[in-house]
Amino acid sequence: MTTRLPSAGFSITIRIAVTADASSIGRLTTCVGEAGAIVTALDVVDSDPTRVLVDLTCDTADSSHADQVVKQLEEQDGVDVRKVSDRTFLLHLGGKIEVQSKVALRTRDELSRAYTPGVARVCMAIAENPADARRLTIKRNTVAVVSDGSAVLGLGNIGPAAAMPVMEGKAALFKRFGGVDAWPVVLDTQDTDEIVRIVKAIAPAYGGINLEDIAAPRCFEIEARLREQLDIPVFHDDQHGTAICVLAALTNALRVVGKRLEDVRVVVSGAGAAGTAIMKLLLRQGVGDIIAYDRKGALHRGMPDMSETWQWLADNTNRDNYSGDLPGAIVGADVFIGVSAPNLLTGDDIARMADKSIVFALANPDPEVDPRAARQHAAVVATGRSDQPNQINNVLAFPGVFRGMLDVSAEEFTEEMALAAARAIADVVGEDKLNPTVIIPSVFDPKVTPAVAAAIRAAVKGAAPHNTAALPETELDDAPEETF
Amino acid sequence: MTTRLPSAGFSITIRIAVTADASSIGRLTTCVGEAGAIVTALDVVDSDPTRVLVDLTCDTADSSHADQVVKQLEEQDGVDVRKVSDRTFLLHLGGKIEVQSKVALRTRDELSRAYTPGVARVCMAIAENPADARRLTIKRNTVAVVSDGSAVLGLGNIGPAAAMPVMEGKAALFKRFGGVDAWPVVLDTQDTDEIVRIVKAIAPAYGGINLEDIAAPRCFEIEARLREQLDIPVFHDDQHGTAICVLAALTNALRVVGKRLEDVRVVVSGAGAAGTAIMKLLLRQGVGDIIAYDRKGALHRGMPDMSETWQWLADNTNRDNYSGDLPGAIVGADVFIGVSAPNLLTGDDIARMADKSIVFALANPDPEVDPRAARQHAAVVATGRSDQPNQINNVLAFPGVFRGMLDVSAEEFTEEMALAAARAIADVVGEDKLNPTVIIPSVFDPKVTPAVAAAIRAAVKGAAPHNTAALPETELDDAPEETF
Repeated sequence: MTTRLPSAGFSITIRIAVTADASSIGRLTTCVGEAGAIVTALDVVDSDPTRVLVDLTCDTADSSHADQVVKQLEEQDGVDVRKVSDRTFLLHLGGKIEVQSKVALRTRDELSRAYTPGVARVCMAIAENPADARRLTIKRNTVAVVSDGSAVLGLGNIGPAAAMPVMEGKAALFKRFGGVDAWPVVLDTQDTDEIVRIVKAIAPAYGGINLEDIAAPRCFEIEARLREQLDIPVFHDDQHGTAICVLAALTNALRVVGKRLEDVRVVVSGAGAAGTAIMKLLLRQGVGDIIAYDRKGALHRGMPDMSETWQWLADNTNRDNYSGDLPGAIVGADVFIGVSAPNLLTGDDIARMADKSIVFALANPDPEVDPRAARQHAAVVATGRSDQPNQINNVLAFPGVFRGMLDVSAEEFTEEMALAAARAIADVVGEDKLNPTVIIPSVFDPKVTPAVAAAIRAAVKGAAPHNTAALPETELDDAPEETF
Repeated sequence: MTTRLPSAGFSITIRIAVTADASSIGRLTTCVGEAGAIVTALDVVDSDPTRVLVDLTCDTADSSHADQVVKQLEEQDGVDVRKVSDRTFLLHLGGKIEVQSKVALRTRDELSRAYTPGVARVCMAIAENPADARRLTIKRNTVAVVSDGSAVLGLGNIGPAAAMPVMEGKAALFKRFGGVDAWPVVLDTQDTDEIVRIVKAIAPAYGGINLEDIAAPRCFEIEARLREQLDIPVFHDDQHGTAICVLAALTNALRVVGKRLEDVRVVVSGAGAAGTAIMKLLLRQGVGDIIAYDRKGALHRGMPDMSETWQWLADNTNRDNYSGDLPGAIVGADVFIGVSAPNLLTGDDIARMADKSIVFALANPDPEVDPRAARQHAAVVATGRSDQPNQINNVLAFPGVFRGMLDVSAEEFTEEMALAAARAIADVVGEDKLNPTVIIPSVFDPKVTPAVAAAIRAAVKGAAPHNTAALPETELDDAPEETF
């Protein structure tokens, strides 16, 4: 089992009054260090001749560890813990995104153009030519991040209100990494028909729909029906974002070990939204063979009570119709991809895989196999964790995918785009940089989003003229000539 | 009939090549002036020894006037019109609002706090205590601007896509005047049940709902049902925003003429969303009597085929059960309020009102009576136009109303709030400033929104502790202590 390490996600600030002797602050930091936390800042708030008030900030491993750190401090002589605050909560106070006006509204003239009476002509232009909505409204650069809160991160069905912090975070990432304006749309319903109806009804304002954290198998039907009914792209990040990143990482991992996709046998643990999309993309790309696992065992022909999706997977994978257990399935396998649950496999299981095996253990925060144990036997190991090498993170894909689709006013998201995006991400890691610990670029690599966006634009068949997001707004040359 | 004057809402920029003699540019501006437009800017773009290329910007009265101006320029010798652009359209290119991240995402640590893994704890805090959504998400400061596009400005039923420029403009005004984050939610359905279901489903993300430009009588039912089902305030700006501003203006107009509300007889033309709300608020405030008009005539007891709303109005207004025509109804009336259609009355009609009469002719852009003719006979005249004194503009109300409601986490919008807001707006015009041409503050008066917001907060019974929007986000003192 993976030991949790202190991280910034669990950083706390503790306000402490201590006696002002020469070593009192030293004793504080020692105490925090001995409790297993990492001091990252120490600020004096106030002092008098005998006492000092300090704000001590430290990274802890999780909430109970933070409690433990505070408790150990309180037990010190001459130490008075006044208040404990949690830097993560402070960052989320009041929400993480806001709406900004792009137009100045300082004068009557500006008001007349942005609102009545000027706005009426803009409305009529769109009423007469609906395609103008992409030019004259935020539709051009705006994506709805839609969730029913039914499968949020690893937290499960926590509902729409509790899903908001994730959806706001996603919107912040969309802007930061892709220049895309994304808005959280959380829905207080988990009825498939109603979700489809609602998303269809709100769609006129948006240039794309990003489905997020909707439970399988409902997510498949919602996505399929929306794709059929809408003229804007529908992308389920848990499926397609993950699949793109996994294919990108696998492409480079296979380069590292010198194997070809069509020759390898892959075992996938987890046949939910992510696993299903990964397998479909690997099949489309011509993978040798796959065995899919879920809680009920290996998906195989003849398995009872399968959903439509599982039946399709059973029909299109598992060449030898294996029905044994997971450790058995990975004996001799070239690749293990886990998008399921913690600690399903041991280092010994990994040792029984084929030579130069590849392990992607993506369950978060605790992977399917301890990555340190896996690295004893596998040639390449990746996880979803930010504190391990080769982090497979959807931030590599979705900002560029939507950036590219919005740039060319794409009407749908296609498998060709997914393949192109995966290739683009893989190729950002140059041959000269590639090694077992670097099969995927950093999320902060500024080359990633432009490369993905360019690949997406190129993948749009008969693409419309390039619709630059940063279109100048005062140049006469960009005037809509036909409106006059 | 009102003659349209040139305005910034119809400003165009014309790129023109002319021969470079000493008077050529002078001839251009003369020509534009003779065509009735007003030159506001002249920029040289390029030149050579014999010619000059200029961008001439001018305000015109409307689209056909702009065409006329361009035509007269083209007819000049040595003038070559290269391109005409419309500054209003340029301002709307790409939409008028954007989403900004309030959190920096520069480093891994920041990412860990804003998104996974840190965000998970914030989600769980809300799952465990749903009231925390108002503290830890954008719900605290965010309003949905909801429209089905069925009654947009004076344009009618132009649908959701064409309504977007107005809803985006509204969102920009919300931020500019109230510091409120508002998001346009346009709906591709005009079914009452479906609109109610959708707004209910999307509500968890929002701290308030602003209904906008939804046709009567559907708007009444939608509003009533949402009020019953939601725990956030529902406000239909076309109704309540207009009613608040009209009551504010009428309060001051009555001060100017020295009459009391309970003594006056009011004629209201237009018994749609705005008119109905105005009449309800005036009745609540104790107005003497009202006669309501709509296309079918005076609403009176015994009128056939009335909607539920009209029946209520007929039962509660029109003391003498008058059923004659509109010019007849205003004979001897103290106040005329028009929220209906252009040019229903003449100056002569206004002359037959009571002494010191008050005329609010709010149909836009062309009022029920020419305000210049009305001013010959009435003591106080107001319109919805920005080029006339006493503009009654909802921007005076809605930003402060929502600012106040969000500040105290109000769960509903009440009639008490409407009365308090109207009083606050009226009182912004001090006794020392009040006169027949200044009965209502300017939309740019910075005292308006704070005054309205304060009145709203005070009107909330048993108000929660003050929830400041500008809550500091890094102060330890604002840490959510209970989360640890």
